[in-house]
Amino acid sequence: MIESVLSKIKEYYLELLPFNKVLGIDIDRLDYETGDAVTSFEMTKDLVGNSTMGILHGGVTASVIDLTGGLSALISCAKFHRKKPLEVIEKKITSSATIDMRVDYLRPGKGKSFICKSRIIRAGSRIVVSKIDLYNENQSRIATGTATYLIG
Amino acid sequence: MIESVLSKIKEYYLELLPFNKVLGIDIDRLDYETGDAVTSFEMTKDLVGNSTMGILHGGVTASVIDLTGGLSALISCAKFHRKKPLEVIEKKITSSATIDMRVDYLRPGKGKSFICKSRIIRAGSRIVVSKIDLYNENQSRIATGTATYLIG
Amino acid sequence: MIESVLSKIKEYYLELLPFNKVLGIDIDRLDYETGDAVTSFEMTKDLVGNSTMGILHGGVTASVIDLTGGLSALISCAKFHRKKPLEVIEKKITSSATIDMRVDYLRPGKGKSFICKSRIIRAGSRIVVSKIDLYNENQSRIATGTATYLIG
Amino acid sequence: MIESVLSKIKEYYLELLPFNKVLGIDIDRLDYETGDAVTSFEMTKDLVGNSTMGILHGGVTASVIDLTGGLSALISCAKFHRKKPLEVIEKKITSSATIDMRVDYLRPGKGKSFICKSRIIRAGSRIVVSKIDLYNENQSRIATGTATYLIG
Repeated sequence: MIESVLSKIKEYYLELLPFNKVLGIDIDRLDYETGDAVTSFEMTKDLVGNSTMGILHGGVTASVIDLTGGLSALISCAKFHRKKPLEVIEKKITSSATIDMRVDYLRPGKGKSFICKSRIIRAGSRIVVSKIDLYNENQSRIATGTATYLIG
Repeated sequence: MIESVLSKIKEYYLELLPFNKVLGIDIDRLDYETGDAVTSFEMTKDLVGNSTMGILHGGVTASVIDLTGGLSALISCAKFHRKKPLEVIEKKITSSATIDMRVDYLRPGKGKSFICKSRIIRAGSRIVVSKIDLYNENQSRIATGTATYLIG
Repeated sequence: MIESVLSKIKEYYLELLPFNKVLGIDIDRLDYETGDAVTSFEMTKDLVGNSTMGILHGGVTASVIDLTGGLSALISCAKFHRKKPLEVIEKKITSSATIDMRVDYLRPGKGKSFICKSRIIRAGSRIVVSKIDLYNENQSRIATGTATYLIG
Repeated sequence: MIESVLSKIKEYYLELLPFNKVLGIDIDRLDYETGDAVTSFEMTKDLVGNSTMGILHGGVTASVIDLTGGLSALISCAKFHRKKPLEVIEKKITSSATIDMRVDYLRPGKGKSFICKSRIIRAGSRIVVSKIDLYNENQSRIATGTATYLIG
């Protein structure tokens, strides 16, 4: 059951959210117990924000922080409704949404590949708050964020 | 001179920031006096965040809010260094960057075309704070944001 | 009925929240239709953050922004539960709480008296988002904020 | 020299900022190397936000998060100007200020005494970003925040 739910979340993110394909997002880990989520993506020409400096566009950073924190919120949503049929959980998942987000840009987004990690800092029946960090391949933290999500 | 500087800002945003092309951003207005900036873009299949509902991806919203507020910061930067040669101003512009940003998602991002408006709420020699709003073609406000920028 | 509810909100804020007395907060206006709220307070020696400069402590600014935005959230909560008995509404009000808040300090908090205005930018059955501005007696905007509240 | 600077920062915070006395703030630790700062305070009747529940007022939480993060910023400021005379550093310190802050309220502020810890996540010559956490005496995290400071 847990596996089916996590598969649904992955499928939803990777198949039904076209902009996630533009970003080239991959889901590396979804932890049902803790709500931790890890995503990754490669630098491409399209994701550059400053071609002279070859760094990640701030919008890409914000997008990945939002969507990775959202994965934690979806896991939390799935757990909260775990006694319900899979179709109901699926509907709850697709109706969850970001309420607000703060992003702090800590250093220029240099790198070839990036990894983004989210953990839940507040889990409720209606809202989830995630803390999210984005690192490059040298474990240098590019940005950090906090986002609040409404659970379906 | 003002025209040259505004042209440089436009050129920088539209030619040198590849991700802005992915978003299909157009610059509608840059006001040298007030620092107001207006951008617009069309909904495309790529920008969708939830294909069932056909709404804008939250990352697109965050990206456009960041980059439109950034235009206000660049105008402010250009004004602050106005006595300097154009090459110097250009360098200051390309070294400006977002420090932090908050985005509030107010309603689902439905629409065919979107317009984003930024105005400066704090202008200093080192930092600029912009307030930014994103609307769809029915003047419905999709999201609002506040972002702090470091001036080159 | 509306008057009783607004009286309860005022009573709750002015009588049951001791720190509001420390701040010397007064409630000038509560608009049941729009959710607008206006509060005011006088500068006192205790509220100073920098005695050399005689300006408001940033924590006072943040406190007043939080509590004024919270009044809008309470009005919204009262409207949502308006068909229920006053005791139920009262309980819902006292169990509402701030989820998160952003404060932007726009200029030094100089002034003799201050007025704080909140309006609702997102009203839901579970969450309310308020936009709040703090002015001094010269209508100079000292700070602005956005806060998200969970409704009881 | 380091000791004189840290003493000046403590004196400034504890003697010259009257609202810090209202809050009953104590400075437990200032680390010159890392910029870490730790403050603490006791619950008093005045700091209560909801007398029925006996929990900390959200404004107190926001105030302490702001001022503790500010201590990290002041250490950073002192280090940046370390080659200058103490009077100059002192002036730089008193002209530093919060630009913006986000506070996330994670659980009701129950407790008898509270400890607040700040660490620097971005240190520049002009701006410092601090991450701050507030705990009660049971090491339960009440709130977390991120704040951006302008360095004098």
